[in-house]
Amino acid sequence: MNYYPRSIRNLIRQIAKLPSIGEKTAERLALHILRTPPGEAQQLAQSILEVKQRTRSCARCFAWSDEPLCHICGDTARNAAQLCVVEQPADMVAVEKSGAYNGVYHILGGVLSPMDGIGPEDIRLPQLYRRIESEGLQEVVIATGTNVEGEATAAFLAENLKRFPVKVTRIASGVPMGGDLKYVDQVTLRRALETRHEF
Amino acid sequence: MNYYPRSIRNLIRQIAKLPSIGEKTAERLALHILRTPPGEAQQLAQSILEVKQRTRSCARCFAWSDEPLCHICGDTARNAAQLCVVEQPADMVAVEKSGAYNGVYHILGGVLSPMDGIGPEDIRLPQLYRRIESEGLQEVVIATGTNVEGEATAAFLAENLKRFPVKVTRIASGVPMGGDLKYVDQVTLRRALETRHEF
Repeated sequence: MNYYPRSIRNLIRQIAKLPSIGEKTAERLALHILRTPPGEAQQLAQSILEVKQRTRSCARCFAWSDEPLCHICGDTARNAAQLCVVEQPADMVAVEKSGAYNGVYHILGGVLSPMDGIGPEDIRLPQLYRRIESEGLQEVVIATGTNVEGEATAAFLAENLKRFPVKVTRIASGVPMGGDLKYVDQVTLRRALETRHEF
Repeated sequence: MNYYPRSIRNLIRQIAKLPSIGEKTAERLALHILRTPPGEAQQLAQSILEVKQRTRSCARCFAWSDEPLCHICGDTARNAAQLCVVEQPADMVAVEKSGAYNGVYHILGGVLSPMDGIGPEDIRLPQLYRRIESEGLQEVVIATGTNVEGEATAAFLAENLKRFPVKVTRIASGVPMGGDLKYVDQVTLRRALETRHEF
């Protein structure tokens, strides 16, 4: 590292803090930035600053947004009567990428985890209940993860949503598409058998 | 990409411009930056701007430097009578990392390449000649690459340095350390045989 002047060393150190970027890659990226036209480096720096300044939570669904309302909540072409509950904004992006969903979202911002002291008031369940009461929803799709906490949160939510006149569904779990049965873990395969359906 | 607000999309696009960073990695890095404390993102942005503003060429050897003279030219512990000629600043870093050299450097900023119209005046040969005349050098180590242009530049330099009272040497080429002879290319092996030396 002492082979470089301080400004280059500093950039290498900052880049190496990023996940899965090692010292060698950081060095290569830093030297690339050193060689790019000043305008391009400035754009990169500017976009880093802007993403921190501009990105906030959507006031309705808590997704990432540059505006008070995110582009999905603000989109009149979406089915506002169907709401998908996910843990984090990145999960919403994953559902969007599937292309199979045209409703709106609600980002919990976490899962219930009594071991870590995270109860119903610590994730955005009160906000979810208020939305169900006020937005005239027809269906709530619970798309929390399929690990222990995600499943427990889904079960808790299904139980608590019984008092609302709304259909509650859960995304299916089972053998992943393209999956070879002999490589699928036992828990997944058991779930796939239990939730089998007729052709 | 339209799954994200504009500021995140913009950051992903800027990061994806870096070499060997694909769309997926850019997305992951952008979301990481989004989640880091603002101070850390600011430091990263700042170090990108600074590397462009501060890094200049050393006035003597043309290495990267934050100061008028680089840390090697300014280091009195280095042997200022031994000068290593390399093509680019990154080559100097490679020689430094070997730990086998304690002299100073001269960065040519390129190699002779008549096909591309790059002649002796287009790389820092005049500056090299002036240094040899004024700095009382005892040895010039030619460490240009071992490809066609690097070799031609080394030969041209060796010929032109004959008029100076200075010892001129060339880094050895041959079988890389840890190399298996059967995987070494013919040209390298021929060179290794031609330049064989006694134990």
